[in-house]
Amino acid sequence: MTFLEMLCDVGRRNRSLLCIGLDPDPARIPAGARAAPDPIYTFCAAVIDATADLVCAFKPNSAFFEALGTTGMETLRRVIAAVPRDIPVILDAKRGDIGSTAAAYAHAAFEVLGAHAITLNPYLGGDALAPFLRYADKGCLLVCKTSNPGGAELQDLRLADGHPLYLEVARRAQTVWNERGNVGLIFGATHADVLPAVRAVCPDLPLLVPGVGAQGGDLTMAVLGAVDRRGERAIINASRSVLYAAEGTDFADAARREALRLREEINAALKPGA
Amino acid sequence: MTFLEMLCDVGRRNRSLLCIGLDPDPARIPAGARAAPDPIYTFCAAVIDATADLVCAFKPNSAFFEALGTTGMETLRRVIAAVPRDIPVILDAKRGDIGSTAAAYAHAAFEVLGAHAITLNPYLGGDALAPFLRYADKGCLLVCKTSNPGGAELQDLRLADGHPLYLEVARRAQTVWNERGNVGLIFGATHADVLPAVRAVCPDLPLLVPGVGAQGGDLTMAVLGAVDRRGERAIINASRSVLYAAEGTDFADAARREALRLREEINAALKPGA
Repeated sequence: MTFLEMLCDVGRRNRSLLCIGLDPDPARIPAGARAAPDPIYTFCAAVIDATADLVCAFKPNSAFFEALGTTGMETLRRVIAAVPRDIPVILDAKRGDIGSTAAAYAHAAFEVLGAHAITLNPYLGGDALAPFLRYADKGCLLVCKTSNPGGAELQDLRLADGHPLYLEVARRAQTVWNERGNVGLIFGATHADVLPAVRAVCPDLPLLVPGVGAQGGDLTMAVLGAVDRRGERAIINASRSVLYAAEGTDFADAARREALRLREEINAALKPGA
Repeated sequence: MTFLEMLCDVGRRNRSLLCIGLDPDPARIPAGARAAPDPIYTFCAAVIDATADLVCAFKPNSAFFEALGTTGMETLRRVIAAVPRDIPVILDAKRGDIGSTAAAYAHAAFEVLGAHAITLNPYLGGDALAPFLRYADKGCLLVCKTSNPGGAELQDLRLADGHPLYLEVARRAQTVWNERGNVGLIFGATHADVLPAVRAVCPDLPLLVPGVGAQGGDLTMAVLGAVDRRGERAIINASRSVLYAAEGTDFADAARREALRLREEINAALKPGA
């Protein structure tokens, strides 16, 4: 099964477009996980267990594991292995380099860590993406427009043809880089107003939309702008609002409640009459 | 001492603008290092020992260590620790993400691994660079124009004002992002013809120039285009041509000979009359 098939299968079964981002910050690990021998693993695995029937994907963030020290990558591998086998794992790594370096990053993500998809930076062009795209069953989600205010500095620059740079990234993702059907885009929820324009350019690509939780993007607009014409292929990500829903021993129950609330809010946006 | 001060000090002492990239490929480790308990560390440390008086910096490439498995980051940390204390280490990682994620990557590079500088992707804008730039004594080298043919796809796009995107990255690096004096640019040697235009926009920024060895960029043009008006602040990188100069037990001696040859060729370009 490809990443996209896994994503759609699990999304239907769990009636969910929600993706939970795993950004474990040692300073915010709830009391209920702090006493374990490996608090970060224990925390992430408990959140995964408590929410696996409510999501379409999990998205561990490589940076937070790298920051743990040189054993962090082994913790990351174990966290990915703790995800039920039928749920796709998106490694959030924003990698981007050329030739043999890109091939080494792809090997690390897909073969060492076991991820089903990875986030990538497209600034280095299609031949730098190729070592990832060669894995036809894996998803390659390209940064298009990010949720931070400074994202506009380069991404919104007007090209000679009048379009912003991010729309050129979307156009190339659709028409040039998606030969094997494994490309997707990342589009911050804080710019939900321009999501319909991106969806029009890329009718079938999966769109990963971070920024609806702690970052405050409008959920309804983000969902309606991101889904394809069948109401699928949108991956609505929340990280901190789910992970740190409670500080005590009930953190996993609280994460489940917040995930349930987000899933229902997403589904309500899709069926306003229901 | 800042990264830039270390770079210039060592460059003067070693009469060298040469940076050796450490891209250890397990399939190409020379026979002389293969029998060691940790062949990758042994190989890299031997190349460092053999060339430390001939370089201005070393540039370990994170991807190749990540690809080794989850113990790769500890090998990377040890390799960085094997570099003599006065020689700056540039972690080639091409990281780029927002907010707390960027802060976690900066912590990993500068505090876990002990690098003096890092390569970054600027597509996410200045506020995504800020958590790195905040380390005023560390260098932040931003991808501007890469040596691969596909780099042109986005980097050469003409903006509404007629300039290519990569020149806008250079302009912002100089005028917006370099508040603390710790920004530099990465510019592939295969485009040495446009290096003078970038140097004109950024008279004082250090320029990391990969692609002169195995990738075949013109060394003389790259050196003359990259140096500042004092003949400094260019970091001319070669990786594979030095690392894999020989396949046998004499790999470190062969690496030294190739590093010496490159240093002299760089210096000859700077003093054509000598």
